[in-house]
Amino acid sequence: MSTRLDFFIDRMVSQRACLDFGIAQTADMQGPVFELGLGNGRTYHHMQHNIKGRDLYVFERAVASHPDSTPPEELTILGDVRETLPAALTRFGATASLIHADLGGHNRAKNDAFAQLISPLVEPLLAVGGLMVSSDRMYFEALTEMPLPPEAVEGRCFIYRRDS
Amino acid sequence: MSTRLDFFIDRMVSQRACLDFGIAQTADMQGPVFELGLGNGRTYHHMQHNIKGRDLYVFERAVASHPDSTPPEELTILGDVRETLPAALTRFGATASLIHADLGGHNRAKNDAFAQLISPLVEPLLAVGGLMVSSDRMYFEALTEMPLPPEAVEGRCFIYRRDS
Ligand SMILES: C[S@@+](CC[C@H](N)C(=O)[O-])C[C@H]1O[C@@H](n2cnc3c(N)ncnc32)[C@H](O)[C@@H]1O
Ligand code: NI
Ligand code: NI
Repeated sequence: MSTRLDFFIDRMVSQRACLDFGIAQTADMQGPVFELGLGNGRTYHHMQHNIKGRDLYVFERAVASHPDSTPPEELTILGDVRETLPAALTRFGATASLIHADLGGHNRAKNDAFAQLISPLVEPLLAVGGLMVSSDRMYFEALTEMPLPPEAVEGRCFIYRRDS
Repeated sequence: MSTRLDFFIDRMVSQRACLDFGIAQTADMQGPVFELGLGNGRTYHHMQHNIKGRDLYVFERAVASHPDSTPPEELTILGDVRETLPAALTRFGATASLIHADLGGHNRAKNDAFAQLISPLVEPLLAVGGLMVSSDRMYFEALTEMPLPPEAVEGRCFIYRRDS
């Protein structure tokens, strides 16, 4: 029987494996990286330390991260992603090399509804060759779902790519 | 370079490995199990689902766990462990088969000072053959530090046993 601890460990391990895969696959791209949801800042810290030569923007409603893992003001995009993602499209166009989203809470139905809502706001931001890594299944029109790296657990993380 | 995400994953994986080891090693004992610090309730949930035939008491200052992982009132010992541990010694004597402690926060120096403070309050609660699993190094007089199970990462978790 799986416990909440087992589930949580699978989720964190999968998140790291998918992020590492996404960072490596897009390492030759120059476009910005978007972290949607800062939370405690653990995945932000991981991305910040492993991504070189690309701007890493954080989208967050209310910054409450660990002091070690707080992004600089000029790379923080404050507000509700339902408003800041459309604004980011105007500002950046289809240039993002990597987008990571971990916006969910405890309620799976709510998370799913939110993923449906923001999928069309996320999709146009990705450059060709860009990847999206998400803790929730997304609802994209034209992105390709990719197989997970071996360390990740099926259903705990999702990877999508813009092929063209 | 290790990130906060790496560190956190190592900690959770070690916690589970040490808990599973501690539960298995003490499976034949009848004395109660004590969970010190409920937090979100993930380790409580794991213990609750894997410990059979023993009472599982939770010591916590302020219950704020996930609804799935909230202990029944009669097994919740509310208050500061600096007061509830001495009271538990009066109530239970040296009968605990397993004690798990994860009371720390972000500040390592504070966690260490607190571990020093509560070590003499925890030590007399353990029955002979009983184990203590802790996220912080403890300062015991007569307990034996045990080697970690293979899945655990050195320094992320500690196991102690009362031999006599
Ligand atoms: C890190 S959390 C425990 C997380 C838990 N192991 C889990 O898996 O979700 C630490 C908990 O210890 C509690 N705590 C810290 N100091 C305490 C004290 N002196 N007395 C009682 N509870 C305390 C806090 O309220 C907090 O809920
Ligand atoms: Ni750092
Ligand atoms: Ni359950």
